[in-house]
Amino acid sequence: MKKGGFAGYVALILVTTLLQTCLVTAFLADAAPQPFATAYGFPGFSSMRHRSILRDEVAARLKELGNVSDSKHVLERTFLSPAAVAAGRLLITWMKDAGLRTWEDKLGNVHGRSDGANATAPALLLGSHLDTVIDAGRYDGALGIVTAIAAVKALKIEGKLQQFPRPIEIIAFSDEEGIRFQTTFLGSSAVAGTFQPKHLKNLDARGISIGAALRAASHEGTVESVSSMKYEPSSVWGYVELHIEQGPVLEAQGLPLGVVEAIAGQTRLAVKVRGSQGHAGTVPMSMRRDPMIAAAQSIVAIENICTHPEKAVAGSRGATAMATAVNHAGAIVCTVGEIHSWPGASNVIPGEVMFTIDVRSKDDTDREINVVRIESEIYKICKKRGVACIIERKHEADAVACAPKLSDMLNSAAVAAMKELPPFRNNISALEDGGMMAPTLVSGAGHDAMAMSLLTQV
Amino acid sequence: MKKGGFAGYVALILVTTLLQTCLVTAFLADAAPQPFATAYGFPGFSSMRHRSILRDEVAARLKELGNVSDSKHVLERTFLSPAAVAAGRLLITWMKDAGLRTWEDKLGNVHGRSDGANATAPALLLGSHLDTVIDAGRYDGALGIVTAIAAVKALKIEGKLQQFPRPIEIIAFSDEEGIRFQTTFLGSSAVAGTFQPKHLKNLDARGISIGAALRAASHEGTVESVSSMKYEPSSVWGYVELHIEQGPVLEAQGLPLGVVEAIAGQTRLAVKVRGSQGHAGTVPMSMRRDPMIAAAQSIVAIENICTHPEKAVAGSRGATAMATAVNHAGAIVCTVGEIHSWPGASNVIPGEVMFTIDVRSKDDTDREINVVRIESEIYKICKKRGVACIIERKHEADAVACAPKLSDMLNSAAVAAMKELPPFRNNISALEDGGMMAPTLVSGAGHDAMAMSLLTQV
Repeated sequence: MKKGGFAGYVALILVTTLLQTCLVTAFLADAAPQPFATAYGFPGFSSMRHRSILRDEVAARLKELGNVSDSKHVLERTFLSPAAVAAGRLLITWMKDAGLRTWEDKLGNVHGRSDGANATAPALLLGSHLDTVIDAGRYDGALGIVTAIAAVKALKIEGKLQQFPRPIEIIAFSDEEGIRFQTTFLGSSAVAGTFQPKHLKNLDARGISIGAALRAASHEGTVESVSSMKYEPSSVWGYVELHIEQGPVLEAQGLPLGVVEAIAGQTRLAVKVRGSQGHAGTVPMSMRRDPMIAAAQSIVAIENICTHPEKAVAGSRGATAMATAVNHAGAIVCTVGEIHSWPGASNVIPGEVMFTIDVRSKDDTDREINVVRIESEIYKICKKRGVACIIERKHEADAVACAPKLSDMLNSAAVAAMKELPPFRNNISALEDGGMMAPTLVSGAGHDAMAMSLLTQV
Repeated sequence: MKKGGFAGYVALILVTTLLQTCLVTAFLADAAPQPFATAYGFPGFSSMRHRSILRDEVAARLKELGNVSDSKHVLERTFLSPAAVAAGRLLITWMKDAGLRTWEDKLGNVHGRSDGANATAPALLLGSHLDTVIDAGRYDGALGIVTAIAAVKALKIEGKLQQFPRPIEIIAFSDEEGIRFQTTFLGSSAVAGTFQPKHLKNLDARGISIGAALRAASHEGTVESVSSMKYEPSSVWGYVELHIEQGPVLEAQGLPLGVVEAIAGQTRLAVKVRGSQGHAGTVPMSMRRDPMIAAAQSIVAIENICTHPEKAVAGSRGATAMATAVNHAGAIVCTVGEIHSWPGASNVIPGEVMFTIDVRSKDDTDREINVVRIESEIYKICKKRGVACIIERKHEADAVACAPKLSDMLNSAAVAAMKELPPFRNNISALEDGGMMAPTLVSGAGHDAMAMSLLTQV
């Protein structure tokens, strides 16, 4: 082993995981098969030799798993649904095939573990979620689980798994999307020890509680059983989650891999604008107090603020000053996704217009600064138009920073993996001048890593 | 008779109708009872003497009629509903009490007629609609019927009804709102001879056709029976409809009466803006094609266009030129009443945003000019933002001009009526310098007068 030691092993598993993502990508894009060079740091480990596992089998398994659905027409697997249970069984088969010891825990998460060379050392956790939204893509969640299994399987065949200096555990989390019970991260929060017992009483659309759903699936479904799932922080070294990008940045750069430096914090606002309802034909323009126009002006203003966000910067005497910059990097994103008017008839000036605002940033201070700018701009517009505005903060979540040490490792692994493949080699070489960095992304979407960050580095 | 002749009679009935509206208004506003001077042109006709009919009875009847409802909680009378049938019976009692010969026609309209001095002369028609929207105000429609009955009753007591040089006929139309069958003016279009036979097959929410509803109410409900209802244009002199204002203009001027010069023409547009759906957290601002922002910019632009509309004006060589003016008079009104986003989740950049536009003006050319400006502005915004816009014209109705001769009479009557009452005398005197004009309004709402305008002057 050129680099040897634990970091080398981590790098190996990462590059393996990441590299086969490149392979799958190339495979799915119908690119001509490429010869694979030796993987990063392990001259004896030939990705060429493992192509059937790392590329073909992964692609086949993603397709197979994508067909395990509660719906005939679209991909749909919600927490503890028949398809979710079937998917868990399939994953257990594949984990066993990779040489892992498997079990299903008391919240339906599926685990596969290898003790490596030292069963009591803090474990490296890999994973993602096995549940899906309604009409999901087949890579959302599944990619992180199936690629981790493939990487471990390749290590096992090379005889490296048993030498691994600490346990490797793959977890397929039972609920990340929160579709069935409207509460996200059920599975990972139980492992992290932050599952709130009151949520056992949450009801799904058919009036079944989480506790009852667990008991129907032969789990205890009690506060005690769920609380007992908590992993000790000292037993865990870190958690790495591979996930398909849910945005257009990498595609635009022509690169298959990036490294997440943070999961964005989020503020969700609900805005109600109340004006004066009236007949569309009888109220002159000059006599209207129309909440629709105030809402429309607000939405235009929100986009402008987030395209030119203010940033907190240290002033000359250490004080915090504000600077406004053009937001090329997507450092902050703002979205108005929902809008309704009341009464909502084409011939009635609305009495009320409601809309939502979703603001995300990796920097909590920047997020707060710009949320306050948005709020104050909306109040100003409403005052000028003589309508009443009520802005409610529905949800706030702070950003989660990823561990720099892990990010550095992922970076090197990602660059090494991308250099293996000619279709991406030219694009990556442009990045090399800047110090061999893979694209750095902020994850605007939430992931199990958010819940796991309360347990260990992610 | 100071003015004498037919015009004098018309003026009398109008001022009577209008005057008692002032009375009702004063009565309902809890103003102190006022002595009433002699009505316009008829020294022997004392409105004071008829206060119990013109004010108290009208107010009581509007209240009684407002309680005839299909719903316990709100006022609701739709075409041929049990409450509509009961309301028709009540109106027949009141019409008989006013000395009128009554009947219900083959579409459920209720008629009351006096032949006057010449049964074969073209008749003066008065009326409004007896049906209502859901959760209606008690004056919408009912005011025009009840005040007409009161005016005729007062004339009868004075012995003037029999001397009236032509027939007076009050019609309570059975369907103006179109709530039950989604088709407006059923009653008045049958009288005007423009009822479309295919509408007999229109279904209500319970699957009952108009024809079946008519037959259930002991009417024939056939094409022939409905077609036979058409009044001959030569048998009719004109149609006058008194209606509560459905806007704020008169209230702002402190006056109870205005004269409608035209019923506005209308264009209804449906706009679909299609962009690129995405995750609210993962797509940088600079990479978005967000239909919500394009829709919001369009809505702001629409308001601006209609607040500063372009008008067609005759150029120096007779050519039509455009002039842009600030729209103080409400000459054109534009409304965005409905808006939806798809998929409509707070954490999703919408893939599509739909909204409606309602444009009304008394001048069809001005309306068309500004609709085209709106359309071209929306296309411009969408092109700039890289989203697709589809604008569909859902409905177009030309404006209906009111007969200048009738409007002049109504004007004089309205001024005379308002001068009778001290609360309004001061406000009206400000108008006198301008030639004794009552406020001139454009009716932005549709009325039975629209259908009747195809039969006679309105």
